[in-house]
Amino acid sequence: MTGNDGSVADLGEWGVIAALRARMPAGPLTSVGIGDDAAVVGAPSGNVVAAVDMLIEGRHFLRDWSSAYDIGVKAAARSLSDIAAMGAVNTALLVALAAPGTLPASWAAELADGLAAEATRAGAGIAGGDTARADYVTLAVTALGDLAGRLPVLRSGARPGDVVAVAGLLGHSAAGLALLMSGVLTPPAATGGAPASVPPTVSPVIPPASVPPADAAAAPPAQAPAPAPDDALAGLVAAHLRPAPIYEAGPEAALLGATAMIDISDGLIADLGHIATASGVQVNISTPGLPIAPALLKAAKALPSTSGTTALEWVLTGGEDHALVAAFPPSVTLPPRWHPIGEVREGTGVTVDNATHAGPGGWQHFR
Amino acid sequence: MTGNDGSVADLGEWGVIAALRARMPAGPLTSVGIGDDAAVVGAPSGNVVAAVDMLIEGRHFLRDWSSAYDIGVKAAARSLSDIAAMGAVNTALLVALAAPGTLPASWAAELADGLAAEATRAGAGIAGGDTARADYVTLAVTALGDLAGRLPVLRSGARPGDVVAVAGLLGHSAAGLALLMSGVLTPPAATGGAPASVPPTVSPVIPPASVPPADAAAAPPAQAPAPAPDDALAGLVAAHLRPAPIYEAGPEAALLGATAMIDISDGLIADLGHIATASGVQVNISTPGLPIAPALLKAAKALPSTSGTTALEWVLTGGEDHALVAAFPPSVTLPPRWHPIGEVREGTGVTVDNATHAGPGGWQHFR
Repeated sequence: MTGNDGSVADLGEWGVIAALRARMPAGPLTSVGIGDDAAVVGAPSGNVVAAVDMLIEGRHFLRDWSSAYDIGVKAAARSLSDIAAMGAVNTALLVALAAPGTLPASWAAELADGLAAEATRAGAGIAGGDTARADYVTLAVTALGDLAGRLPVLRSGARPGDVVAVAGLLGHSAAGLALLMSGVLTPPAATGGAPASVPPTVSPVIPPASVPPADAAAAPPAQAPAPAPDDALAGLVAAHLRPAPIYEAGPEAALLGATAMIDISDGLIADLGHIATASGVQVNISTPGLPIAPALLKAAKALPSTSGTTALEWVLTGGEDHALVAAFPPSVTLPPRWHPIGEVREGTGVTVDNATHAGPGGWQHFR
Repeated sequence: MTGNDGSVADLGEWGVIAALRARMPAGPLTSVGIGDDAAVVGAPSGNVVAAVDMLIEGRHFLRDWSSAYDIGVKAAARSLSDIAAMGAVNTALLVALAAPGTLPASWAAELADGLAAEATRAGAGIAGGDTARADYVTLAVTALGDLAGRLPVLRSGARPGDVVAVAGLLGHSAAGLALLMSGVLTPPAATGGAPASVPPTVSPVIPPASVPPADAAAAPPAQAPAPAPDDALAGLVAAHLRPAPIYEAGPEAALLGATAMIDISDGLIADLGHIATASGVQVNISTPGLPIAPALLKAAKALPSTSGTTALEWVLTGGEDHALVAAFPPSVTLPPRWHPIGEVREGTGVTVDNATHAGPGGWQHFR
């Protein structure tokens, strides 16, 4: 945190591991954590739910735009939300980190803080990991979870007549990214020793071509106050930088009898498309039911060259908020945080107000 | 396998996943495999053992030197052996793969074959993963395992009086690497569409400075015949390219009552040092008991500028064979594949024939 404490190369591999380990507590179900050949994590119901996601510098974030803390939060959230989307409770993360030897040790420490904070928010901890040297920062975070005796909620169980509902934000991350890329908002200076931080003044900032999401930092990240009403746009940027999935909504949906569930990483239409395909059904989204936050409308007005449908497009196609979307039998009484947005029908694909949507699909990572 | 089937960018992310999925069967305990938000893998004893290891192009391998199949085997073996070193049985791998869009799809397919073959050899399968785009091939493989009701064998349980024994090869990988780096043996041409393969002729091959281990390929890898007696040196190269840990020796050691265990990834002395530190003991290695294969002596003779102790140095300090080394109470009758090589004493650190060894330690990845 000092910015003057040298590089990870100065510390060496085991020094880095020791430094990070102290900042990343193990979760309550971890009996063997960082420091042995492998971790041992409780799986009380006799199965483990496991998912891995990568986050790569220059592809998923830029160190000039994002604080290490933000990157830690985002890397953890991407994997943790996959576990929630199965209806499971998160128990532990394993963190594989490759980085240049010149990376400031303080940067790695803040990354660990972000990973640990988000894991803790999900009820989990950091149970293990690996470090290696690479030309740019590469993270592969594996999340482990437990089903507490329930069956997993797959993508394949949606049935005609089911209600489709969403828990969490839609379009906020996409709107925040659009604000950053257009230069309407400038990323706060990245903290924690990022090598070349963006001046904290309002100026156009154009990310390198073909780098999809570029991030920035709010400092201090953990204690950032809730945005005031006129900080609505800054709140969208914060949502892009530090997604905050509602992890507990996953097990809640499972208990309610959800027939299918997915976390929205590629966009509402794209991810509902996975449910439609896996379940052999059609999903229709009713736009009057979609939660469109006032901040999204404000952001659309603030941006040059946007149309009246921009906010709706963010909601329909923006990924990375990691909201959960699920199908429920029509008899289920949904708790307030689950917003009904559509229904399951016979057929194929996803329709919006009964018509095929012409918008973009999800990320195609190799294209 | 054709070399003419395009790049991963041509396939797109989901095309790649679909292609790889077909080549990577799930293990017997996996009830939900590739294709949902997360995998569901049996953990019959109520705990899961989990470890992650990274393998990075230009750091741990070169595509010109290694076949995709070899890289798959090595990436899998590194993680699978961590599970065995806890005394656990492997159940599943999760594979995170980042690669350039220009990577031939056939290369990715052969990689999947290597991963699947080694997972299957360990009794496991491929349960999930992630793909992303990156400038070079990056693998992060997470292994999951089950303890079958036993306690994990940690690094910290060795007690004075224990016998130290090893199961698996020592120094073979290091000798094979030395043969490749010196040019005494040339890596077989990498198969499967590597962009610039090394001509299959004997010529000096010097890897780029500061790239530690460089690999090469034998084709066809899966069906390579056991080396004939005069293929001893080629066998060492094969051991470097495709480590073959004895996974079942891990649970065997646990059943025998092993007090501490580790897999040798950094070298015998370095990894015994981890046991000595964690257990608060000293470990003495008796060189007369060390298994030094005749091939190692032959390799030392074949290399320029080696001394009579080169073979012993490989055995003491060479990593990457992923042999298992464990401490056992002196009353234990060891099966034939466990070779006694030393003993546990009061004190600190590792000694060789009662003296401190001056050789190099393990890899320091960030230095």
